[in-house]
Amino acid sequence: MNTNLELLRELMRAKGVDAVIIPGTDPHQSEYVSDYWKFRDWVSGFTGSNGTAVVTLDKASMWTDSRYFLQAEIELEGSGFELQKVEYRGELATIMSWLAKEIHEDDTLAIDGRLFSLMEANRLEQMCGENGFLLATDFYPADEIWEDRPARPMSPAFIHAEEYAGEDVESKLSRTMEKVEQSGADSILITALDEIAWLLNLRGSDVDFTPVAIAYFYMSDKDRVLFIDSDKVDREVESYLSSHKIRVKDYDEIEKFLDKRNVNDTIMLDPNKVSDTLGQTLECDKVYGTSPVEALKGIKNEVQIDGFRRAMERDGAALVRLFMWIEQNAASGTINEIDVWEQGKLERAKSDLYRGDSFEMICGYREHGAIVHYTATPESASTLQGEGLLLVDSGAQYLDGTTDITRTVTLGNPTTQEKHDFTLVLKGHLALSRAKFPVGTTGVQLDAFARMPLWQEAMTYGHGTGHGVGHFLSCHEGPHSIRTSLNPVALVPGMVTSNEPGLYKEGEYGIRTENILLVVEGPKTEAFGDFLEFETLTLFPYDTRLIDTAMLTAEEVQQINDYHAMVLERLTPYLNEEEKIWLSEKCASINS
Amino acid sequence: MNTNLELLRELMRAKGVDAVIIPGTDPHQSEYVSDYWKFRDWVSGFTGSNGTAVVTLDKASMWTDSRYFLQAEIELEGSGFELQKVEYRGELATIMSWLAKEIHEDDTLAIDGRLFSLMEANRLEQMCGENGFLLATDFYPADEIWEDRPARPMSPAFIHAEEYAGEDVESKLSRTMEKVEQSGADSILITALDEIAWLLNLRGSDVDFTPVAIAYFYMSDKDRVLFIDSDKVDREVESYLSSHKIRVKDYDEIEKFLDKRNVNDTIMLDPNKVSDTLGQTLECDKVYGTSPVEALKGIKNEVQIDGFRRAMERDGAALVRLFMWIEQNAASGTINEIDVWEQGKLERAKSDLYRGDSFEMICGYREHGAIVHYTATPESASTLQGEGLLLVDSGAQYLDGTTDITRTVTLGNPTTQEKHDFTLVLKGHLALSRAKFPVGTTGVQLDAFARMPLWQEAMTYGHGTGHGVGHFLSCHEGPHSIRTSLNPVALVPGMVTSNEPGLYKEGEYGIRTENILLVVEGPKTEAFGDFLEFETLTLFPYDTRLIDTAMLTAEEVQQINDYHAMVLERLTPYLNEEEKIWLSEKCASINS
Repeated sequence: MNTNLELLRELMRAKGVDAVIIPGTDPHQSEYVSDYWKFRDWVSGFTGSNGTAVVTLDKASMWTDSRYFLQAEIELEGSGFELQKVEYRGELATIMSWLAKEIHEDDTLAIDGRLFSLMEANRLEQMCGENGFLLATDFYPADEIWEDRPARPMSPAFIHAEEYAGEDVESKLSRTMEKVEQSGADSILITALDEIAWLLNLRGSDVDFTPVAIAYFYMSDKDRVLFIDSDKVDREVESYLSSHKIRVKDYDEIEKFLDKRNVNDTIMLDPNKVSDTLGQTLECDKVYGTSPVEALKGIKNEVQIDGFRRAMERDGAALVRLFMWIEQNAASGTINEIDVWEQGKLERAKSDLYRGDSFEMICGYREHGAIVHYTATPESASTLQGEGLLLVDSGAQYLDGTTDITRTVTLGNPTTQEKHDFTLVLKGHLALSRAKFPVGTTGVQLDAFARMPLWQEAMTYGHGTGHGVGHFLSCHEGPHSIRTSLNPVALVPGMVTSNEPGLYKEGEYGIRTENILLVVEGPKTEAFGDFLEFETLTLFPYDTRLIDTAMLTAEEVQQINDYHAMVLERLTPYLNEEEKIWLSEKCASINS
Repeated sequence: MNTNLELLRELMRAKGVDAVIIPGTDPHQSEYVSDYWKFRDWVSGFTGSNGTAVVTLDKASMWTDSRYFLQAEIELEGSGFELQKVEYRGELATIMSWLAKEIHEDDTLAIDGRLFSLMEANRLEQMCGENGFLLATDFYPADEIWEDRPARPMSPAFIHAEEYAGEDVESKLSRTMEKVEQSGADSILITALDEIAWLLNLRGSDVDFTPVAIAYFYMSDKDRVLFIDSDKVDREVESYLSSHKIRVKDYDEIEKFLDKRNVNDTIMLDPNKVSDTLGQTLECDKVYGTSPVEALKGIKNEVQIDGFRRAMERDGAALVRLFMWIEQNAASGTINEIDVWEQGKLERAKSDLYRGDSFEMICGYREHGAIVHYTATPESASTLQGEGLLLVDSGAQYLDGTTDITRTVTLGNPTTQEKHDFTLVLKGHLALSRAKFPVGTTGVQLDAFARMPLWQEAMTYGHGTGHGVGHFLSCHEGPHSIRTSLNPVALVPGMVTSNEPGLYKEGEYGIRTENILLVVEGPKTEAFGDFLEFETLTLFPYDTRLIDTAMLTAEEVQQINDYHAMVLERLTPYLNEEEKIWLSEKCASINS
């Protein structure tokens, strides 16, 4: 019996609640959340990054996507939770149709409004209206029944030096206020942790993989207030903030602060990011819009770009050592997927600027490579052998840039089928990399270039082709994307995007090839306007043993050789003699 | 002096109107309108298909796009109208900012609400509110001051036989009602002429190029009413309509009909199509949504598809004769662009099923080809010579299908640059034609395949790549498109689209290559879902003298040769010996 679930139901009965929706996020709509907010995990046992729990007085369901079906089945065993499979994120609409069968008109559906964005809560309210349910947004079970709740993370905040950030805080604040005022507001409340980190050139270690501090930030032209646990702010940070006229208040004071006495002008809120609770607390006039910080942060300045280039060089050199180590040890059957992960961290940590991985390494040998978000556990970890495909998707946080790279390599004796599939994926990856496109082009217009070689053979992949990458920040960021969905944000110079087509053959192997690209200016013309193109930031060779050169055009062969020549030139200064020899073999020209 | 404009201003003063917006459309938001609704032309002298007039008591402006700049400059000379250049359609927003400078707060802006969709009038009202203008939607100057106004067209309506339409009216009506009811409505008002024509298998000749009758259609599960001038309905049509329980009322009775006595349930309206006047007349509950007929009409049935194939064969044969005639006469300097147009009609009219052209032929020789929507006039028409590029974009209405094809040919001595440019355009056209893509793919995901060869050399074209094509209906229809804009409608089997990349070098030449494609089912897979692909419907060779084969991949060469083999095989039965010889030369295999 799941006693945590029973405790929850006891509370529900006591409060007259008939159903509750428990998301897996935090008050900042973070992708990675600290243990303090893992109430959903506590009540259900399910630990996947995407999952929404729905509990009624006699049923309980967990909504997650295909990445987590296997894990959820194991973790939910005996928990009283039933697994509900959804295509992508736990769609509120499908949850509501489930609830429509489980609870009755005039029943109360409760949520912790701090964990839902204004937009989500709004949709929920509308759907409750249609179903005749009452919605209560002030149900806080984690605060009431979670006795052994972990503490809120208390790691110190630190300054991200301007030599890395490339822009002074004052400049960022004023550029942001300009956008706020253009939108007709006088102030803004920023709740996304990476936006606050970027805006204040401030970082923290409160969350895995993303160097942010848990905080809120309020700004008008008269006032600037950072809400953060005071223990995280040392003398240096305090005086730094104060030099920028930023007051520090305790994290928990945010709600109290947002009343008429302090905030009485027109405030800008991003309805997809600000929590329902905070949004409802505000009684002043509101302007809703995408946070201007997202767009500003998405365009990297020259210092950041140069940092990315250096970070990629150090990262590439670390990968040279990692993949040499794999090659030297795989055939003997002495290392497994987790060892690769550990070794990767070890090699990257040799850089002074390394501050941890940017996400949990996906190291998938053979059939594990076909599980898109596979995480090796001691139980599941395969021992590498002298053949078969190995997919390694990894990245790091360096003070001067964030990396994210996937390479698929053969550990020996590649089959014709493996080479064929690898080459198809590579052709798509290359087509996107060499694209030139007019100013104004959006990611959805380019996405299919990475897919078409697969589509021509009736294959595809289920994930996006490209996501933005933060600068010593979240490995996944917007506002742009290269996906099949209709994101209206155009690509502009300074944006950084991944390029990661893949192919997953269940039970056999997975292939993914990923570089990080920078959008740069291309040719400018009188007659046809200005064009953009990509500079490839990532530096590591493709495994040429897996290329079926007969499938390549002369243009593609040239593109690979040019890239490998650049990789060799840029990484060589970071390598010892043995590594140089290894890399020059990997980067040797191929012929068509 | 423009006396028509003065008459309008006299009326404005009499009615207390400070500004008026006069669009170029009709109450059905038609692309081509009958003379009866060309009040904008009457008041300004401008005859372009896209143009919005704005008149104040002392100024007058005409908003049109680049296609019409030259024409507008000539036609508006001395009219009192100033040309206002806009990127695409006469944007209400830019008109409003112009008005903001010309008229004052509390001034009255008037429109004929019958000529604005509900959506447009809504936006206008909002913008008037922001500027402090009053909006009057009941200003009907055409009814009051246009003394020599042409009569409303009175051509007879006729039945489009089921042997061509492929679906019984009853089935179409019930499929439509099903969608209406799914949207929560009990009835629907259909105002788009091509939707009514498709739904009732009824055609007319009230409008140039599109075989429709001017009408409205109302349907609930209790009532079906067609509003049409009774003179257009002969015995046969009357009994046909009556057999489908469709009552006929006079066209002008629509407003009177739409009151509480007749329409008191929930009615479905397409806010982009129904006029503001009709929308406001309705007092019952409304459900707004895209007309379900648009989506149903966009998917062709097997009979229509087969009709398209046959129509393309006859059309291709007519083009063989046309282009032979051009080749035989160009070098002697005896024919001009208008002669080509006339000859095209003549050749197409040899088919019994021909019912006129589907749009005004664009025949652009040399620099005229660079004017995207060029229409030759007796003054402008160039005489063809034995060299240079000729762009011919033309199409026809046949009872069994509508055609739309563009070919660019050399009249002799092609230059290296011409061949290079032609080949780039062709590469894009071929890439789109051979695309395979998963179910769910939208046009914007494919659009750039037609552009990328140009983009790689910093060139592009300013128009869409693909539009839907009606079946013996409008040459341009939705709901899908292949454009750079984010149209969410996915391509599905049975949809028909053009594939028409181009390149326009001002003062030199224009190149466009256009075929009509049918979306068909492709491979179905367990692991990756179902795929779609295109079948090319259009049958006419590309001018191989303009192909630089060194720029083609082996795959592209094969694709061209395969297409030409099909063209030859399919057209041969329609040709005489001389024509067969000519075509087999044009379709001869090329080598890489």
